[in-house]
Amino acid sequence: MEKSDDRKYPLLSKINSPADLRRLDVKQLSGVCSEIRDFLINSLSSNPGHFASSMGAVELTVALHYVFNTPYDRIVWDVGHQAYGHKLLTGRRDAFPTNRKKGGLSGFPNPAESEYDTFTAGHASNSISAALGMAVASTLKGESPKRNVVAVIGDASISGGLAFEGLNNATNTPNNLLIILNDNDMSIDHNVGALNSYLTHINTTKAYNNFRFKLYRLLKKMHLVTDKQKNFILRFNNSLKSLIGHQQNIFEGLNLRYFGPFDGHDIEKVVRVLSDIKDIEGPKLLHLRTIKGKGYRPAESDPASWHAPGKFDPSTGEKIAEPMQDSMAKYQDVFGHTLLELARQNDKIIGITAAMPSGTSMSIMQEQMPDRVFDVGISEGHAVTFAGGLAKDGMKPFCAIYSSFLQRAFDHIIHDVAIQHLPVTFCIDRAGIVGEDGVTHHGVFDLCYLRPIPGIVISAPADEETLRDLMYTSQATDFGPFVIRYPRGKGLNPDWRTPMKAIKVGKGRMLRDGNDIAILSLGTMANKTASALDRLDKEHPGISAAHYDMIFLKPLDESILKEVGEKGCPIITVEDGMRDGGFGSAVEDWMNDHGYHNRVIRIGVPDEFVEHGKVPELMAQCHMDADAIHDAVLDLYQSNLKS
Amino acid sequence: MEKSDDRKYPLLSKINSPADLRRLDVKQLSGVCSEIRDFLINSLSSNPGHFASSMGAVELTVALHYVFNTPYDRIVWDVGHQAYGHKLLTGRRDAFPTNRKKGGLSGFPNPAESEYDTFTAGHASNSISAALGMAVASTLKGESPKRNVVAVIGDASISGGLAFEGLNNATNTPNNLLIILNDNDMSIDHNVGALNSYLTHINTTKAYNNFRFKLYRLLKKMHLVTDKQKNFILRFNNSLKSLIGHQQNIFEGLNLRYFGPFDGHDIEKVVRVLSDIKDIEGPKLLHLRTIKGKGYRPAESDPASWHAPGKFDPSTGEKIAEPMQDSMAKYQDVFGHTLLELARQNDKIIGITAAMPSGTSMSIMQEQMPDRVFDVGISEGHAVTFAGGLAKDGMKPFCAIYSSFLQRAFDHIIHDVAIQHLPVTFCIDRAGIVGEDGVTHHGVFDLCYLRPIPGIVISAPADEETLRDLMYTSQATDFGPFVIRYPRGKGLNPDWRTPMKAIKVGKGRMLRDGNDIAILSLGTMANKTASALDRLDKEHPGISAAHYDMIFLKPLDESILKEVGEKGCPIITVEDGMRDGGFGSAVEDWMNDHGYHNRVIRIGVPDEFVEHGKVPELMAQCHMDADAIHDAVLDLYQSNLKS
Repeated sequence: MEKSDDRKYPLLSKINSPADLRRLDVKQLSGVCSEIRDFLINSLSSNPGHFASSMGAVELTVALHYVFNTPYDRIVWDVGHQAYGHKLLTGRRDAFPTNRKKGGLSGFPNPAESEYDTFTAGHASNSISAALGMAVASTLKGESPKRNVVAVIGDASISGGLAFEGLNNATNTPNNLLIILNDNDMSIDHNVGALNSYLTHINTTKAYNNFRFKLYRLLKKMHLVTDKQKNFILRFNNSLKSLIGHQQNIFEGLNLRYFGPFDGHDIEKVVRVLSDIKDIEGPKLLHLRTIKGKGYRPAESDPASWHAPGKFDPSTGEKIAEPMQDSMAKYQDVFGHTLLELARQNDKIIGITAAMPSGTSMSIMQEQMPDRVFDVGISEGHAVTFAGGLAKDGMKPFCAIYSSFLQRAFDHIIHDVAIQHLPVTFCIDRAGIVGEDGVTHHGVFDLCYLRPIPGIVISAPADEETLRDLMYTSQATDFGPFVIRYPRGKGLNPDWRTPMKAIKVGKGRMLRDGNDIAILSLGTMANKTASALDRLDKEHPGISAAHYDMIFLKPLDESILKEVGEKGCPIITVEDGMRDGGFGSAVEDWMNDHGYHNRVIRIGVPDEFVEHGKVPELMAQCHMDADAIHDAVLDLYQSNLKS
Repeated sequence: MEKSDDRKYPLLSKINSPADLRRLDVKQLSGVCSEIRDFLINSLSSNPGHFASSMGAVELTVALHYVFNTPYDRIVWDVGHQAYGHKLLTGRRDAFPTNRKKGGLSGFPNPAESEYDTFTAGHASNSISAALGMAVASTLKGESPKRNVVAVIGDASISGGLAFEGLNNATNTPNNLLIILNDNDMSIDHNVGALNSYLTHINTTKAYNNFRFKLYRLLKKMHLVTDKQKNFILRFNNSLKSLIGHQQNIFEGLNLRYFGPFDGHDIEKVVRVLSDIKDIEGPKLLHLRTIKGKGYRPAESDPASWHAPGKFDPSTGEKIAEPMQDSMAKYQDVFGHTLLELARQNDKIIGITAAMPSGTSMSIMQEQMPDRVFDVGISEGHAVTFAGGLAKDGMKPFCAIYSSFLQRAFDHIIHDVAIQHLPVTFCIDRAGIVGEDGVTHHGVFDLCYLRPIPGIVISAPADEETLRDLMYTSQATDFGPFVIRYPRGKGLNPDWRTPMKAIKVGKGRMLRDGNDIAILSLGTMANKTASALDRLDKEHPGISAAHYDMIFLKPLDESILKEVGEKGCPIITVEDGMRDGGFGSAVEDWMNDHGYHNRVIRIGVPDEFVEHGKVPELMAQCHMDADAIHDAVLDLYQSNLKS
């Protein structure tokens, strides 16, 4: 930190680890909270990242590190959007400007980055299970002093099936787990589901307190309760809350001791409550009410758009638009508008998203046809099985889910859709390298895990027109599961609203002819390949390379493969996914099965986890960008000449 | 049905579809129930299948088809163990002796088999989501008459995360879904988790009724409730039940109307309740208490062992042991005893199973070390993430999960284990073709979906000794995720308790040398390969075939591959999994990457869903048995001579 920062952040600048925080008086903590907020506003206004979630969790973060003996005690964050304050308090304040940059801090908690980051936190709902594992490990090891383990989970994440499985198992075994429900009544978009409506209605009113008193006396008179029955009284209070609130306490139903709801922005109260309950034996849940974006008025009033706002003017809250580089549409928007267009023609079409209506642009259809779009919350498995049920009774569901999140629904795709050949269209968004969100978010496995599923169609458009044609084709036919994958980001054609037509499933297209080398690309990698070949034309006009946009990984276009096989020329396959087991491997398998021995070079993500950075940086690192394709063609051409 | 059956089953023999059932008087239904039970006892005693679950669901099944207008109304069974009675009532009585046989009836509901089987039902917890899809489809289509959709789910299945996601979404939208909780306080083994303990304690006592009356008067006096507030009264009753029962009503908390619990064996009452509630608008849950194995005393008293009892004497209940074919141990038992042996030496070892302690033989360690074995119920995702948490804090968890069920935890393996390189051992049971359980249960995808995960070790032992050595190696080293897959069934060595030793990860072994052809096998397919080669030796002694037991798919043994590559001979790969994208494809990829052009023939499951039958029948059908391997070697040898 620079000297000027010492003046701007008199408390924060002296906190280089939570131990420094714990030396402060509790009265100073609200000052620390203010400074963290100022720091986040200043830093994120110029170096964009997730904003509103971390703003809402400031008091909670400070209180946790103040009360608990981190890193000996474990804090497990569920989805790391909320953990920026945690990074600032755990020795990463000076590094914070590198947030989400290649080689810099990860945008999520990352155990490889800090011992304070106890578990990977990119996919929602895993904190309770992971923390339970740590709590049980501590009990089994008989550690002394006793290790506290805290899972911090938002109200959106807790609706995921994995979180429920964790809750359901939390009381099976002796452990000291504390689950903190950070309830801001929001996920990225607005929260959905019965559990959310339940949380919204939990309250404690004056009427409740009066009633509780009278009823308690009655129960004592009837000898149904005595003062000694403390556990009963706890349940009694919660039962009453639920009775008056017209709601049941689900957590008590799962045998968890429930505390709350409390104001999650009252730092002294949160510290007091945490201190009070931290030594209570057994699993317990603390319910805190927070406001997403708290402390920055523009974010408080529109938390959804401030989830990850981009650059903004900290003094006014005005968002600073990135200079318009082109007028191209995002693939997401092409998807969204096209789906609405199709839904207007085909009343069987249903839209399904799992908590990502804005991210996937499912919101475009949702606004016009709210009855035909289902945002099921963070429940990818349910999204797919629900789609299966709809398809079984005659509908044409379109499930738009990010590639890396769809991993949660792998079994559901097989068991609840593919075995029955049900016509569900999977629009796999954020396929391939996604950039700054990093290792947990790259959508690089889908081609590999979908390929072995019998009867599934797997396609990837190279451009907007093909995306639209694939969507049209899927709803107009009955192929069973039909996958269309496309990346985060923009297309190439400002006039993308082309008339839609059915295309032949399993049919690719030749983009250029040539004899020395054949390049087979899948999806938008066609465009990088085309650039590479254009450069090659200029620099090495003697090389005659053919280029095919295969469009389909499954079924493969066998006429193209045969044509290339018979030429006997070496082949380069290009895909935006794992190099081993995906499109390139499928091409190789086909060649081998059909007795062709063309050499095949596969370009794709190498067999390692890819961290965060800008997409072009990561593409270069993985040898998947236009330069790498160019070099691969040249190398192969030259080595083939020699051999 | 034969004539004698008409006398034995006077009612059942005349029911060829539910319409016939619906013509009976309600008083006759208990007779139908008795006949179904007799039929099941007689049929299953000689042709084994799942027994106790269907016995417990007889009244429920009869009542459903009596009250609802099937197949127009939809019944969605969750896991089809309980659906044999349903098959008998829906025109499949005469075909019932073909149950689970190749070409015969499927052991689970199967939409390809009957219009009464509305959805695939092999993996637990999917019924609510699928039924919700159907209910929503019906609402959107505005069908008249209104279509009723009923999901029938057991108390074990409802603990799965997918079921919770379904429940959480059931009230989001107008629909008429009825969820029936068939609560027998059992899954295959005993049920676990907070939800189970919750269900066990729901009750309605006399004290409750007295108390309810007094309290209701008090509430009215306080003007907190009026007679008109019917919905409130419903909640009020449930709140009271939960208060007195020291429990909360979780379902009411999720905004579902809750009815019950009722005796699920009182057929007239179940019919009455179903008739009463079927026209109530909105999603609702009916809780029935049933007894697994009901109506057959031996099964009632030991339902776990009567889940799928094999053959038995119907009059005495004595189980008829299959004639002992050999003294070999099941791989499951080798796993179970070895785990206990290792756990005695290494106090970091923890056992985890997802509702299958007996099936996986995790029960062996569980009996001796109950504190170190966790049966997490039907929660594969939680099982894996929980293992991740344990491993993060120093333990060595062994997760034993069936291959096809592990598909539910694909994302968890990547996100919660592999990214962090955590030392979790996955003992993948029922890998490969499993036989009679059929299409939903074959463990044929694991090699394909695991292969692209960076840093994971994937192994498959060919024999008991190697299984033990792999388990030893995994707990003694820190490779990160370590997969050991093995099939359902027996090994080959009665003296399998060999001393354990560490083996080199990524190192295969040559079983026989040869020059004409190289066969690379993975796992127990080595034994089929060896038989094939023995036969070949006798019939065609001129063919010199090498055979390598690769043991590891990842990392591959590159020294073997190099040796084979340099020989230039054709290669046959043999695996018990999907032919496209698994072991054979990996070998091909490696050969191609390293400039070898050996022809590769891959033996494995073809690109289609495989139905049920005996393992040898299905292996033959897939051209994966010893005969097929023999023929493949011979063909390849002969075609190679020609070329």
